[in-house]
Amino acid sequence: MSGSTWVPNNDPSSDFSLANIPFGIISTQSDPSPHVAVAISSYVLDLKVLVSEVDLTPIFTSSSHADVFAQPTLNAFAQLGRATHREVRRGLQDLLAADTPYPHLLRDNAHLLERALLPQRSVKMHLPMAIGDYTDFYAGYHHAFAVGAMFRGPENALQPNYSHLPVGYHGRASSIVVSGTPVGRPVGQMVLDPSVLPKQPTTGPSRRLDIELELGCFLATPNDMGQPISIAEAEEHIFGYVLLNDWSARDIQTWEYVPLGPFNGKNFASTISPWVVLADALEPFRTAGIENQTPLQDYLKQSRPDNVFDIQLSVDLTTPEGDTTTIGRTSSKHLMWSFPQMIAHHTLGGCPMRTGDLLGSGTISGPTAGERGSLLEMSEGGKKDVLLYGMDARTFLKDGDSVTLRGFCGVLGARVGFGECRGRIYSAMPKVSES
Amino acid sequence: MSGSTWVPNNDPSSDFSLANIPFGIISTQSDPSPHVAVAISSYVLDLKVLVSEVDLTPIFTSSSHADVFAQPTLNAFAQLGRATHREVRRGLQDLLAADTPYPHLLRDNAHLLERALLPQRSVKMHLPMAIGDYTDFYAGYHHAFAVGAMFRGPENALQPNYSHLPVGYHGRASSIVVSGTPVGRPVGQMVLDPSVLPKQPTTGPSRRLDIELELGCFLATPNDMGQPISIAEAEEHIFGYVLLNDWSARDIQTWEYVPLGPFNGKNFASTISPWVVLADALEPFRTAGIENQTPLQDYLKQSRPDNVFDIQLSVDLTTPEGDTTTIGRTSSKHLMWSFPQMIAHHTLGGCPMRTGDLLGSGTISGPTAGERGSLLEMSEGGKKDVLLYGMDARTFLKDGDSVTLRGFCGVLGARVGFGECRGRIYSAMPKVSES
Ligand SMILES: [Ca+2]
Ligand SMILES: [Ca+2]
Ligand SMILES: [Mg+2]
Ligand SMILES: [Mg+2]
Ligand code: NI
Repeated sequence: MSGSTWVPNNDPSSDFSLANIPFGIISTQSDPSPHVAVAISSYVLDLKVLVSEVDLTPIFTSSSHADVFAQPTLNAFAQLGRATHREVRRGLQDLLAADTPYPHLLRDNAHLLERALLPQRSVKMHLPMAIGDYTDFYAGYHHAFAVGAMFRGPENALQPNYSHLPVGYHGRASSIVVSGTPVGRPVGQMVLDPSVLPKQPTTGPSRRLDIELELGCFLATPNDMGQPISIAEAEEHIFGYVLLNDWSARDIQTWEYVPLGPFNGKNFASTISPWVVLADALEPFRTAGIENQTPLQDYLKQSRPDNVFDIQLSVDLTTPEGDTTTIGRTSSKHLMWSFPQMIAHHTLGGCPMRTGDLLGSGTISGPTAGERGSLLEMSEGGKKDVLLYGMDARTFLKDGDSVTLRGFCGVLGARVGFGECRGRIYSAMPKVSES
Repeated sequence: MSGSTWVPNNDPSSDFSLANIPFGIISTQSDPSPHVAVAISSYVLDLKVLVSEVDLTPIFTSSSHADVFAQPTLNAFAQLGRATHREVRRGLQDLLAADTPYPHLLRDNAHLLERALLPQRSVKMHLPMAIGDYTDFYAGYHHAFAVGAMFRGPENALQPNYSHLPVGYHGRASSIVVSGTPVGRPVGQMVLDPSVLPKQPTTGPSRRLDIELELGCFLATPNDMGQPISIAEAEEHIFGYVLLNDWSARDIQTWEYVPLGPFNGKNFASTISPWVVLADALEPFRTAGIENQTPLQDYLKQSRPDNVFDIQLSVDLTTPEGDTTTIGRTSSKHLMWSFPQMIAHHTLGGCPMRTGDLLGSGTISGPTAGERGSLLEMSEGGKKDVLLYGMDARTFLKDGDSVTLRGFCGVLGARVGFGECRGRIYSAMPKVSES
């Protein structure tokens, strides 16, 4: 198998090279029921159509997966486990390779090609997983340090627990949406002038609406309640990865979060990219995370040092007038905790993970200016303008702004990327009236 | 319809009088697939059997609900909305009343009775709802004050936001279990001697395992993302109530919770009682909650002052030797925020609620000693023994201890209660080893 595909119109900068083969949920004009597809180049391969029309036993050595590919989420496929994900991805790579050993199955089968290989722009993408629980961590060291320093000074930037355990909190699963879903500016309680005591809140649309650039990780296989997942086993429980924009209303969050953590400042929306990049596809891009000088508890010790991925990440802001500025570029390697460490910690006390559970990395920022994953950091707490094309500027988001996260690894022609994680802010509705 | 039922073996102290008719999920020897039943006296009425064997159109004026009663959770029934819940509950009360107008349907139908009316002890109870998201609030004023005073002194016991909004945090849905499910003592990170600086954690079984006496509220009907539920509409979105024991590992929580809130200290288990008491059944027991002197934001203003329920609550602790002591008695009226206020706040920014979502009230304690809803309060932070029958004592829970929450309203013979919310602690497994 060579590195290129016979799929036409191949763009070397595509996120969806033959090295990727990410899974997603599509609906099409001929089949409006959401079902499973993979992305290849600027196309999708509709797996529900594929498995129903040809005998794939030559390429998938185990049984057919027709049933899981007709499902409206990837959960049934994810639950089959990593050995199956690996086999199916490799089989699809064989089928789509320029030198495919099975040209008759798809490449030379015009009748099937026409119905199974569809331009991406012709299909609708859906939320890829049914998400039982969502947990957001705080593993982006530079973000945690910068935000902590803003509030407590650099000496006390990080809490004493930060280097001992991956700090995280439970998020809201019901408001996770797929890229492209409009995001309403949340109304909430906030304190406009914190210098007036006692503090007096008002209720209105958030004035400090922000983004958080994160990597999301989907769980493949569950653990029983009371049975932790050891760090050595954790990789086997991972299905794959998405980009995650953890939209955050800083003014709402600041007023509400003591003592029990973020709530309405976070739960109005979280956007994920539509394609789940399988764990195997990211394996070649491993690297070491941020060094932690603190001696770790045994359950967090990971034998391999290359426990995070070097994914090139970017944040684009598009104004209502249509001008787009890349306001941040960084790498997903700037994490101090790996997803296996997060999983081992999360389940240490026996908490059960289920297929489709989502873990967020926490905001990812690099060490230098230009590598910030939130407007809070870029604007230094709202005090400095972030300059944009079109002679515009922001501290936080305006109505009509769109934010697009992107991420990829690898060289031109062999990229493993995520596509877009995009959301546009629409104006808050009028205040709720009592009827 | 009189106040009594023809169902035999009626115990006047039963939680399940004709005034109640709570819904749950059972499996039986003849039908091991979980399905819907109601509790009446010491029996359950199997609704799947009932609706499949008799024509209930005389008592349920709208269409039959055969399909929803065969489901493994109450979600499909809950989603039908309060008007339907009300009609079905009233119809079942008519059917079960001593002076039932429909004696031939069930009471005098020996063949059906034998299969539809089963002793409670002969059926297995299951988790009543599929819970999409679980949010735990902190509306128990006396608890919040007592715990805050313990950490920051009485002057600063409550955070400035406490009286302005119902403080809450997202909990973990995957570890919510039904009464009777054993609860493993969680292993976690904790700091044994916080006076040693820098703080040094160790990993081991929690030494400060606690309970939290709470009321849980299940959502019936959803709201669309971006569309808040106004406080005037909130009651119509409520399905019913359960008792909730929010098990808490205080030592794990203390170390982990700054700055993002409780995590592993809470997510190992939360136990709920098996029967969902419909919102209508609690209507006669409304009362005023704790007065809030703070002027409220408009969206939290509730027209009726009787916005909470006066449910008599108790906490029993049973030692491994089998001695049972009632360690706390209080009322669910000691809340400063009502569930409609929690719902209005939770959805203010557009967060979507789904059928089956669970809201916890927060720990309920009364103003006096003997009315505490947690061992943390009873033992004054672990400094004072809570005395038990059998010449025993506790600060926090021992392995083998069982805790049983109970709650009821109303007079003997007409009680509306929850049954038991019980869990027994089993010992933490050996520390996870790396393989
Ligand atoms: Ca975040
Ligand atoms: Ca609680
Ligand atoms: Mg979010
Ligand atoms: Mg809990
Ligand atoms: Ni009906």
